[in-house]
Amino acid sequence: MSLEVNLQVRLAKRPDGLPDDDCWSIVEHFVPEVGNGQFVVRNEFISIDPAMRGWVSAGDSYIAPVAIGEVMRARAVGEIVGSRHAAFPVGTKVMGFFGVQNFGLSNGQAVTRIDEALAPMPQHLAALGSPGMTAYFGLLHVGACQAGETVVVSAASGAVGQIVAQIARLKGCTVIGIAGGSDKCRFVVEQLGAQACIDYKSVNVASDLRSLCPQGIDVFFDNVGGDILDAALANLAQHARVVICGAISQYNNLDSVKGPKNYLSLISKRASMRGMLVTDFADRNAIAVSELAGWLRDGLVRSTLDVEAGLTRFPSALRKLFAGANFGKLVIEV
Amino acid sequence: MSLEVNLQVRLAKRPDGLPDDDCWSIVEHFVPEVGNGQFVVRNEFISIDPAMRGWVSAGDSYIAPVAIGEVMRARAVGEIVGSRHAAFPVGTKVMGFFGVQNFGLSNGQAVTRIDEALAPMPQHLAALGSPGMTAYFGLLHVGACQAGETVVVSAASGAVGQIVAQIARLKGCTVIGIAGGSDKCRFVVEQLGAQACIDYKSVNVASDLRSLCPQGIDVFFDNVGGDILDAALANLAQHARVVICGAISQYNNLDSVKGPKNYLSLISKRASMRGMLVTDFADRNAIAVSELAGWLRDGLVRSTLDVEAGLTRFPSALRKLFAGANFGKLVIEV
Repeated sequence: MSLEVNLQVRLAKRPDGLPDDDCWSIVEHFVPEVGNGQFVVRNEFISIDPAMRGWVSAGDSYIAPVAIGEVMRARAVGEIVGSRHAAFPVGTKVMGFFGVQNFGLSNGQAVTRIDEALAPMPQHLAALGSPGMTAYFGLLHVGACQAGETVVVSAASGAVGQIVAQIARLKGCTVIGIAGGSDKCRFVVEQLGAQACIDYKSVNVASDLRSLCPQGIDVFFDNVGGDILDAALANLAQHARVVICGAISQYNNLDSVKGPKNYLSLISKRASMRGMLVTDFADRNAIAVSELAGWLRDGLVRSTLDVEAGLTRFPSALRKLFAGANFGKLVIEV
Repeated sequence: MSLEVNLQVRLAKRPDGLPDDDCWSIVEHFVPEVGNGQFVVRNEFISIDPAMRGWVSAGDSYIAPVAIGEVMRARAVGEIVGSRHAAFPVGTKVMGFFGVQNFGLSNGQAVTRIDEALAPMPQHLAALGSPGMTAYFGLLHVGACQAGETVVVSAASGAVGQIVAQIARLKGCTVIGIAGGSDKCRFVVEQLGAQACIDYKSVNVASDLRSLCPQGIDVFFDNVGGDILDAALANLAQHARVVICGAISQYNNLDSVKGPKNYLSLISKRASMRGMLVTDFADRNAIAVSELAGWLRDGLVRSTLDVEAGLTRFPSALRKLFAGANFGKLVIEV
């Protein structure tokens, strides 16, 4: 093992806006030595997440920022190839924050064992991972959608949005997606079963929502923020629930976030807007994984992956995510 | 009765921004004839409310706008002086939407009988009326404040804010007010029992909140919107509840409302922001009136009134409200 090289993507400087190539240094490091109570994971797939933008900014968030010179934080799935940890023997497949590198060292904290019988490895970063959990708990617990309601989801063809759309449809809701471009919109309708999908790049989202949701929006699941959030707020039903999952349109410009000017509709519609962090539902993940795995197996939910090859693609893959150029859940195959 | 004059304030044109004098016409009309199932109320006190600004704008709200030429909508309390309605005999004291005029005609819809033994007439527009109900249900039901939590209330010396501050204190919360000017801030601390009051006209609200609420804000009760809402959002505790009661800083400029740019703290703090309309709690008003009347009687809650004399003061009284120049609940004594 020590003869192998551990390629790592490290944070070289804090980005101003969209992180360009010189924010990262790609270095060859040694494979970490395994101390007592530790194990080493050979990463197979690395997750590219919107939250990464927040992790590299200094400032108050739910998690400490990645330090300059540190390996970039990332969720990954892989196999344990060296272990001095009784609960995590060599050969175990695991998911955890193993970083953007070939080999990650762990003490087992926040590490989950993967059951490959449930779904292929990368799906444990997608439908059975954080995006799937976010969709499941955000829609069913925070949004509390009910059969017969109208659910609108932004970034509907993305990692979280594609799962939200399909669970909402399974639960008997009318689903309207919002996505960028006609290919994505076709995918959202034909593959995910949405009743319609609004191409935010070519139409007025607010007026399309008005005609597509004549009774108003009961649950708006927002991954985007900005003008799209405002368009949804202008079309809420009475007692609507707005789930604030993310705001990818704003993450590269957090010093001048566009606040939702239509937030006063929360009063006239007796509506709520609630933020969520998927980690708060960790004690119930097993239930969600089991239910989602069943839906995947039965073909009731599809989980599309967008796979980039090789660690050195990390800087461009992250920009691809923020450009909305990915289609489904974006991962790097190591 | 028909020999008397019914002075009326009617909407002459829709205001652009703050309503100036020429938005209103003050006319002498006849006292209305009482039809079958109707009664006439001689108004004694008329309530001046922030919601009035919305009522005179065309557009989508929770209630139809006042038409041009129509008597201005207003809550009022008074005595029935003519009746052909079995349930509302002459001499009954009532509260309802009787308009900015001497005599209002009603069929009894949305009219409440007043028990003068509970509190003097104008208090039925204040602590025992809509502001008191808004404070009670907004703080205890929507905000769900708990003993030991930190409650921050904006417009703390206003009609709703003064009641919120005192109920929160009674419930064992640490109360921080936000108000404009040193006189109001002194009142909020000395008369309402807040631990501190931030003068938004002279200090940085966000940094003052940071030092006054070291554990963060558990419940923010917002009557103001704009920069003050953003300052509170920047200082939320985990699982905070933001009650959106109003946004008086924005009502005169609804075409370019300042959205809360710090709304993403809802995610990192797993917080919620919820709008409320006091009418949704009408079925529980009797409980709140009874409890508030007890607190008033026992001196545990004070309800300060700001009384203007005469119907012709209506245009200037409304501007006074939006200038934040009132001190406590603003009413017109007819």
